[in-house]
This record gives sequence, structure tokens and C-alpha cells, in this order.
Amino acid sequence: MTTGATIQERVDNVDIALDTMFLLVFGIFIYLMQAGFAFLEAGAVRSKNTVNILIKNALDSFFGGVSYWLFGYAFAYGEGNVFIGFSHFAHTGLTHTGYAHWFFQFVFAATAATIVSGAVAERCDFMAYIIYSTCVTGFIYPVVSHWAWSDGGWLSRGDIYEIDGQMVQIGYHDFAGSGVVHLLGGTVAFVGAYIIGPRLGRFDENGKPIEIRGHNIPYAALGGFILVFGFFAFNGSSSGSITKPGDEESVASAVVNTVMAASGGAFITLLLKRTHTFGDSKWSFLTTLNGSLTGMVSVCAGCHAYRTYCGFFVGLCGGLMYLFINWAVLKMQVDDPLDATAVHFGGGVVGAFAAPLLTFETGVFYNWNKASVLYLGWQVAGMIAIFLWALTLSILVFGLLKKAGILRVSEEYEMKGLDLPKHGEAAYPAEAYGHGWGDDQNT
Amino acid sequence: MTTGATIQERVDNVDIALDTMFLLVFGIFIYLMQAGFAFLEAGAVRSKNTVNILIKNALDSFFGGVSYWLFGYAFAYGEGNVFIGFSHFAHTGLTHTGYAHWFFQFVFAATAATIVSGAVAERCDFMAYIIYSTCVTGFIYPVVSHWAWSDGGWLSRGDIYEIDGQMVQIGYHDFAGSGVVHLLGGTVAFVGAYIIGPRLGRFDENGKPIEIRGHNIPYAALGGFILVFGFFAFNGSSSGSITKPGDEESVASAVVNTVMAASGGAFITLLLKRTHTFGDSKWSFLTTLNGSLTGMVSVCAGCHAYRTYCGFFVGLCGGLMYLFINWAVLKMQVDDPLDATAVHFGGGVVGAFAAPLLTFETGVFYNWNKASVLYLGWQVAGMIAIFLWALTLSILVFGLLKKAGILRVSEEYEMKGLDLPKHGEAAYPAEAYGHGWGDDQNT
Amino acid sequence: MTTGATIQERVDNVDIALDTMFLLVFGIFIYLMQAGFAFLEAGAVRSKNTVNILIKNALDSFFGGVSYWLFGYAFAYGEGNVFIGFSHFAHTGLTHTGYAHWFFQFVFAATAATIVSGAVAERCDFMAYIIYSTCVTGFIYPVVSHWAWSDGGWLSRGDIYEIDGQMVQIGYHDFAGSGVVHLLGGTVAFVGAYIIGPRLGRFDENGKPIEIRGHNIPYAALGGFILVFGFFAFNGSSSGSITKPGDEESVASAVVNTVMAASGGAFITLLLKRTHTFGDSKWSFLTTLNGSLTGMVSVCAGCHAYRTYCGFFVGLCGGLMYLFINWAVLKMQVDDPLDATAVHFGGGVVGAFAAPLLTFETGVFYNWNKASVLYLGWQVAGMIAIFLWALTLSILVFGLLKKAGILRVSEEYEMKGLDLPKHGEAAYPAEAYGHGWGDDQNT
Repeated sequence: MTTGATIQERVDNVDIALDTMFLLVFGIFIYLMQAGFAFLEAGAVRSKNTVNILIKNALDSFFGGVSYWLFGYAFAYGEGNVFIGFSHFAHTGLTHTGYAHWFFQFVFAATAATIVSGAVAERCDFMAYIIYSTCVTGFIYPVVSHWAWSDGGWLSRGDIYEIDGQMVQIGYHDFAGSGVVHLLGGTVAFVGAYIIGPRLGRFDENGKPIEIRGHNIPYAALGGFILVFGFFAFNGSSSGSITKPGDEESVASAVVNTVMAASGGAFITLLLKRTHTFGDSKWSFLTTLNGSLTGMVSVCAGCHAYRTYCGFFVGLCGGLMYLFINWAVLKMQVDDPLDATAVHFGGGVVGAFAAPLLTFETGVFYNWNKASVLYLGWQVAGMIAIFLWALTLSILVFGLLKKAGILRVSEEYEMKGLDLPKHGEAAYPAEAYGHGWGDDQNT
Repeated sequence: MTTGATIQERVDNVDIALDTMFLLVFGIFIYLMQAGFAFLEAGAVRSKNTVNILIKNALDSFFGGVSYWLFGYAFAYGEGNVFIGFSHFAHTGLTHTGYAHWFFQFVFAATAATIVSGAVAERCDFMAYIIYSTCVTGFIYPVVSHWAWSDGGWLSRGDIYEIDGQMVQIGYHDFAGSGVVHLLGGTVAFVGAYIIGPRLGRFDENGKPIEIRGHNIPYAALGGFILVFGFFAFNGSSSGSITKPGDEESVASAVVNTVMAASGGAFITLLLKRTHTFGDSKWSFLTTLNGSLTGMVSVCAGCHAYRTYCGFFVGLCGGLMYLFINWAVLKMQVDDPLDATAVHFGGGVVGAFAAPLLTFETGVFYNWNKASVLYLGWQVAGMIAIFLWALTLSILVFGLLKKAGILRVSEEYEMKGLDLPKHGEAAYPAEAYGHGWGDDQNT
Repeated sequence: MTTGATIQERVDNVDIALDTMFLLVFGIFIYLMQAGFAFLEAGAVRSKNTVNILIKNALDSFFGGVSYWLFGYAFAYGEGNVFIGFSHFAHTGLTHTGYAHWFFQFVFAATAATIVSGAVAERCDFMAYIIYSTCVTGFIYPVVSHWAWSDGGWLSRGDIYEIDGQMVQIGYHDFAGSGVVHLLGGTVAFVGAYIIGPRLGRFDENGKPIEIRGHNIPYAALGGFILVFGFFAFNGSSSGSITKPGDEESVASAVVNTVMAASGGAFITLLLKRTHTFGDSKWSFLTTLNGSLTGMVSVCAGCHAYRTYCGFFVGLCGGLMYLFINWAVLKMQVDDPLDATAVHFGGGVVGAFAAPLLTFETGVFYNWNKASVLYLGWQVAGMIAIFLWALTLSILVFGLLKKAGILRVSEEYEMKGLDLPKHGEAAYPAEAYGHGWGDDQNT
């Protein structure tokens, strides 16, 4: 214990211990986002479909756990080619260091699948949910994360260019997944909502939307708070380590920019709604909440490398995009009960696009040169590739489910509610309420 | 600061700092399980008893804090004999390093007590609750944790055997407490439910169970999500440190196996319920939730040392055991509103039994030899000892409380609800609802 | 990597990484207190004002984020004079290490503002809320944190005294902010509640209080659990680092004393309410919850330096003070719906006063000498200064808002509820409830 070598081993060990703890603690934070989505969605549906949306959200992480263990992780981070990995199926050959990595990647994968459940809420059949959710966590998302986040992926590699006489590698960059997680999840969500069709009564005969209000705003608020909490970790920990050079800066910047982007997104949506620019001149809580979520989605891609004002500005743009996509989706008569498209697709596009523009010192905005423009080019290419992949695969999955007649519940079930016939459980059984102490007191 | 010695001191200091932070962060995570149990239970009772169950769960950690400070920790981790410790009463002589250890052990102790409150819900008197809860946190649980987790306990020591010419120490192993926490808590819970008797109307005159549904499934879901979140820490941090050799592997494996076991438990219960093997052919959320919880209880004992497939398999077995114990308890006409017996006793038995069988490389399943069989023997001995201890003590406590006539509330209170007469507070006061903006709008 | 110098750099780096992670993880924990306050308050208001209180609590951290970024942090931790800082406006010149510090200080600032929202609940106009909340996070609180927590502040510097021939620096000490956060927040809350006036119907014509019950105790319980969870971090992390000498001790002691103080506060309030000393002889959950919160507020100032029995005792005193201030505020016919004055002002006074008395070895109680008495003197001076500052500024802010006629909503809005006219959103829209499966089943 007194020789330099032993000290060095001990320091090596501390680095590993600290990084392991970093991955696990932040991974556990991110896991809680499952509860965040669950309550955001539970609040947004009618009471008759509450148990249905809760079990879907709960199972996302359990079915996701199994499929990401059996094959999802292998496709994403196994050795393979530039397009897909194919080793470590069912954790074979995974070292223990790999376990922490697996857990950390798993909570991201579960998030991607969860995004979709909101868009098809109140009408998607349970069996169809199990199938599409397994596809997203087990294949659609892992392949894209292989492209963009594994060492060997074609997007993360990019290409080698000669710039000022030096060979420079330039590719797609997406720190916390504006594109990889949210643009992908939002695309699948939109396709799901489009193919499954709107809820009964969502549009009148002229295609005018009729609001279907959720049954519990406090649940939505709880979900929102948990999601902000989780986003600090989601964005903050995407370096994957805390001991490598530059990690502390990345992590701290990412957390601060998440605050900024959430504030920016909340601010602009609150204001535009209140001033009647969009909507009805009220201080809308749900709009502001979605604005802040979109802000945090938007800042993902570059949150480790923005100056604070850029983080705020990206959040503002995310909020604007949310309002626009929200409007456009309704215009298309697509019924996305949770605005998953507006929040995740909208925020994802803003985010993936903002990173090459606003990254400090090297972004196009700071430094218009060959390198920054090539980076922008790769970023656009990556976005298009992710979008087309998600679009194609999800059309396939939801199309086949529809063809097979198992995508959507019957009209009777939809009107009367899914909780009792499908799950045998009511969220609020009437006979469980009331007491015997006289009417003057209370429920 | 330039000599090797000073560097070594600094590295020592980093190790201590990192381990302290590890204990505190994961301990804080585990504390939140109190909220998890509180909402799981609040959702499972009728609205008239909601405040009653919430205050009990909240006080568990406060009364538990005092009793674990005054004597619980002394019995558990004080110097003493193989059966019980008796130093550090009221933290006397505890160093500051000991404070982090105390906090970490306290959150485990509070969990053990909390398990019981569900089994006697909706009818246990408040004074009786204070007494039994103090006994569990302050004595029943600490003694067992002394046996199994303190250096000097008879179960952790085991005995020394000659194997292949070498002297080997073999004893009871229970990484995160399948036996120490859950088998114990589940046994006390069952005894409590048995002695206090079923809620009015829980069984008809022929002994056939009549379901009493809880008033709020979203609360149960919230509790479930928080418990999964907490279990990652509960299982993950039971090494008690992150810097010692092998710690990173233990912690990462424990977290991953917790995901696996929760998935396995959820999967099998969902499936068997749906296929009408148990129950009524629905996708039951509450059963699936309990299945996943039992899976995580089951994996406790060996989660740091299983291959992933074993983690999943242990969870499956836990789920099966849950369904079986759930059925058996009802057959015995015992009313356990939260299925605490099925989840914690059932899961605990599976878990403590699985560890010597499935531990990688050294378990009976991998290596049938004298050492592994002796380990299995010690494990069974430990389970029996813990069960008998918990059984005897809890019969004594609940028996005396019943004898004294203070165990159960009056029939009138039980029928009309506990919240108003005992606490003066209704969960949902009727006059606090409604608004003045016209019926077309809403509540 | 083999030279001593490189090892030293690596150890330096580990220290920074560990401290950064410490600040961020505990900061994220503390952020969740926003959700804790939100649900504590949502449960305590009537259903017609639920969305209103939720959006205020959610925006606290978003508006707070912007104002603390633009100027709050500059006033608090910028270079300046003993009274106020004035650099780093909008993060200019802030290094990346500063980002973690900013985030950590921001979550404290957001907490200070949140305290106020409860006191003026159910009647404060939304615009007025935005203004006072920005003032608190952006100026009133930052200036006081500059006094007491920045290196150059007049309270933290104190003065230099000759004691036993040595020059000793003695000043105001407030580890986690009993005075800086809670006494300040509680004072502003009281002034707000006083100037805005009681809710309609809160006092009868003789000035006798008429209880207005909140609509959902489980929400209050959820808020309470989250706040305890958050307080472990709030108190535990106020050292601001974990690697400096003594840090581990401070952090572990702070967490343990937080358990103790919460227990003490809960214990005394539960008991005194039950024994009819205060109140109506019931086991009151809400009183006990507030008692435990006040205990944790009280222990802030010295939680890192108390023996455990002192932590418990300080919590007891906090609980007593809560009951007293609660009574006194009602006597003055001031309507503070969340008891923010009793919890935060009451607890803050107890806490700031207890630190110089009970700090281990150097407190007046252990060691009555010139140094300890001077420390007590500075502590009292600090409390008075903070109180007068908060009092003056908040009279100015709330007075001007009242003068301008924008402080309070109209009588019609107050009676009919704020959610629909101000936010266009009902917490529980009636049409979102019910299902079509027959009355025998349920809601």
C-alpha cells in the first residue's frame, strides 16, 4: 500500500467506483421518470381508463427489462457492424462493469417506449400495447442508439474530412438524445396515433376538435414534477461518467441548461397562451407544463456544451415548436391525448438542430467554417435517418396490428371504459367511498 | 501534499467520503419507501380509513427513529454476544462514521415495521400500533439483524468446517434481507392479521371471502413505482460500501437483478391471472404489481451474486409463491388487506432459499459439494430461526395487546371509519369540493 | 501516469468529480421539495383553487431559475461588498465549477420563494404572485445569503476578538439556513398573509376562526413525505462538499439529526394535541406533519454539529414553537392557510437560536465563555437583521401590490374559485368521471 503502483491501483479503483455510482444513482433517478409519465398520462385520461394507462406505464419497464436484456442491448451495444450490434444477447459475455452500463441504457430505452403510450391512450388494446412496446424497447430504439451512441455506429463515426490540412472526424452528436430518444419516440407516437385513429367524439363532423379533458390535474402535476426531477439526471448523466476529463463541466452544464430550457419553454408558452396568441387568454397550467417539458427535450442534444443563454433560448424555441406542432396535429385531425408528438417530436427536432448551431465556440453560430457546417450537415442527415427509420418501422408495426384487427378496442369498451372489462379493476370503486358519521362532516 | 504518504491519506479520505455518500444517498432513496408503502396502503383501504393509514406510515419512521436511536441500533450493532448487542444505546460512544451506518440501518428497520401496518389495516387501534411498531423497530428486527448482519452474530458467523483439508467458515448469507427484513416482517404481519381477526364483512358465514376494494388505484400505483425505485437502492446498497474490492460488481449486479426479478414476478402473475389459472381472466394491475414486488423481495438475498437469468427465475418463483400464499391465507380465513404475508413472507422464503442454490459458481445448482450443501443447511437453519423468533415474539406482542383489549377498534368505529373519531380529519372533506361556475363546467 | 505528480492530479480530479456529484445529486433531491410544497399546498386548499396553487408552485422554480440566473446569484455570490454582490449577472464569467454551485444555490432560493405561496393561497392574484416571487428569489433572499453564506458577507465575517491572547473571528453561523431560508421565508409569508387579509369566511364577526379544510389529505401526506426526503438533502448537503476534512462527519450528523428533529417535532405535537393541551384530543395527522416539518426547519442551523440528543431536543422545541405561533397567528386574525409562519418563522427562530447554545463542545450549553457568548450575540444580531430586512422589503412589495390593486382577486373569483376563470382548467372535470358498466360496479 506504500508503493506508487498500489496507490495508482487504488485511484483506478476509486474512478471505477465513482463512475459506477454515478451511472446507478442517475439511472435510478431516470427510472422514476416511468412514474412521471404514468401520472402525467393518468391525469390526462378519463377515470374509466385510469387503471389501463397505469398498468401500461408500469409494464413498460418490466417488459422492457426482459426485451432489453434478451436482445435490445445486444442490438444497441453489442459488437457488430455500423448498423446493428449482435453480441451480449441475454447478457452473455457481459462483464460486471457492463451491468451498470446495461442498467443505465435500459432506463433510457424504457423512456423511449413510454412516450408512445400517451399517444394511443384510451383506445389501444392491451395485447397490441405489449407488442409495440416490446418492438420499441427491443429493436426500433436499440438500433438507433447503436447508430448514434455506440463506438461503431455510422452516425457516431461520421466521416473523416481534411480541414486546414488536418484529418478531422465529424459525425452526428446527440448528448442526451433529442434525436435518439425523443424524435424517435415522438415519431412512433405520431404514427401510432394516426393509424389507430382518434378517440370517439374527439372531432366533430366538420373535423373541429372537441376537447376531451383528463380527470385529474394534480396527477398531471405530480408527473410533471417527477419528469423535471428525472430530466436533470437524464440530461446530466449522459456523459456516462464523472471522472473523465471534462465530465464535471459537462454534467454541471447539462443540469443548469436543463433548468434554463425548462424555464424558457414554460415562459414562452405561458405568455403566448395568456396573450391570446395561441389559445384562450388564460394562465394555462397544462400548456405551461408541456412547454417546460418540450424545453427540456429540446436541450438534450447539446445541454453539456451550451452557454446558459443558449440553453434558455433553445427552451424558448422548444416551447414555440410545441405550440406549433400541437396546432398542426389537431389540424391533421390526429388525436394525441398527451401531446407526445408536440413534446417529443417537436422538442427533438429543435434539439437535434440546435446543437450544431449553438454549441459553444464550435457551433455555426459562433464559428461559421467548414467543420461546423459539416457538423450541421451530419446532424440533419442523422435526424432524417432516425425519422425515416422510426416512421417505416412504426408504420409496419402499427399497420400490421391494425390489419390483424388487434390494435384497437371495441367501440363498446371505448365508450364504457377499459378498466372494468380489461382489468377487472376500477380506479375509484364507488363502494369504497363514504363513511358513517353524518352528512355534516364529509365524504 | 507531495509525498506518497499524503497522497495515500488523501486516497483514504476519498474512499471514506465516497462510501459515506453512498450510504447516505442510497439510505435517502430507501427512506422514500416509507412513502411507497404509505400510498400502496392508502390506495388499498377505504376512504374512511385513509388518514389513519397515512399517519401510521408517517410515524413509522419517526417513532422508529427514536426507538432505533435509543436501543434498536444497540441491540443490532452494539458489541455484545452472538445473540444480541448492548452498546451504543442512544448513540453513546458512536463515532461520526457510525452516524452514516446508523442512518442506513435505520431506514431498513423502518421498512421492517412498515410491512406490518398493511396487514392490520382498517381495524388496528392507534395505541396498539404505536406499541407493536416500537417493538418491531426497537427489538424484534434488531436482534435478527444482529444474528445475520453484525460481525459477531451466530448466523453470520456460522461454523468452521474442514473441506479438502482447509478450514472454511460457512454461515447464513442474506445480502439485502429476504430473510432478515421480509420473512421477519411477513411473519409478524401474518400473526398480526391472524390475531386481530378479519375486517367486518370480509368473509361470509361459510368462510367465503368477499372482496373489500381499496378506494384509489392510482395511489397504489404511485406506491408501487416508489417501491421499485426504493428497491433498486435497498438491494443495490446492501454491500454497505462502494470502494471495497468487488463492491462495484455487487452493486451493479444487485440493481440489474432487481429489474429482472421485478420483471419475472410481474410477468408470471400477469400471465397466470390472464389465463384464468389463478383468478378471473383479466389483466390485473394490482396482482401484477404485487407480483413484481414479491419478485424484488425474493431476489434480495442473493441479488449481488446471481447471473441475470437467475435473477429473472427467482422473480418468477417469487411471483408463483405470491399467488400461492395469497390463496392459502384466504383459505385460512385470515384477512391481510395488503397481502403483506404473500409478498414479504412468500418472497422472503423464496429468496432466502434461492441464494444457496443459485449463487453463481458456488451455489448448489452450479456446484454440488460439501461447502454448498452446508451453506444450504445454514440457510435453512437461519430461515427457521428467524421465523420462530418472529412468530414467538409477535404472538406475545399481539396476544398481549388483544388480552389488554386495546388491539382493535370498536365495531362502530370500524363500520363508520377511523378517520373522524380517531384523527378528527377526513381525507376528502365534502365541503372542500365544488365551485360556483355553473354545472356545465365541473367539480 | 506513473509519476507522483500525475497521481496527485488524478486525486485532485477525483475530489472535484466527487464534490460536483455531491452538489448535483443533493441539489436534485432538494429540487423535489418543490413537488413536496406543491402537494402539501394542493391538499390544503379547496378543489376549486387546486390548479392555481399547482401552477404557482411549478413556476416558482422556472421564474426563479430565470431571475436567479439573471441577477439573484450575482447579488448572493458575486464579488461585491459586505452587503451585496454584483458580478456574474446572467452567468457572465462563471466557470464551469461555478455551474454546479449555481444549481445548488438555486434550489435553495426556489425553496425560499415557495414558502410564501402557501400563506397567501386561495386569494392572491397570479400577476402579484409572479412579482413577489421574482422579488424573493431574485433579491430579498440572495442579499441575505450574501450576508451569511458568502465569504465576504458581514454576518459570515462577523468580527475579530481577542480571546485568551488569541485573535478569533466570530460571526453568525447558519449551516442549512434556519435563519437565511426559513426565518426569512416565514417572515415574508406572514407579511403577505397579513397584508392580503384573511380568506372570506375565515373569521366570524367576533374574530373567532372558522376552519376551512383542505380538499385532499393524501396530497398533503405525499407532500410531507417528499419534504422529509428533501430535508435530508437540504440539511445534509449544506457543507457544499464531501471531500474536505470534516465533511463526512458534517453530512452524516446532519442527516441523523434531521431524523431526530423530525421525530421530536412529530412526537411533541402528536402528544400535546392528543392530550388536549392544544386542540381537540385527537391523533391529528396534519398537526403531527407540521410538527415534524418544524422540527426539521429548527435543526437546520446546527444539524452538522449537534449530538443526537440535541437534535431531538431542538425538534421538540420546534414542535412547541409551531403550536404557539399557530395559536398566536390565529389570535391576530391572520389567515395563513399552510401555517407557513408557524413552520418556517417559528422553526427558523428556534433553529438560529439553538445553534450557539447546543453546538457540541463550543456551544453556550457546553462551554459558557467569552467566545460562546459572543457567538450567541452574533446569532441574535443576525436573526434580527434578517427579520428586519425581510419585514421591510416584504411590507414594501406586498404594500405596493395592494396599493396598485393587483394583490388580491375579486370576491366573486374567490368565492367561485380561481381555477376556471384564471386558468381555464378544473382540477377534476366532472365529465371526465364515470363509466358505462352499471351502478353496481363503481365510478
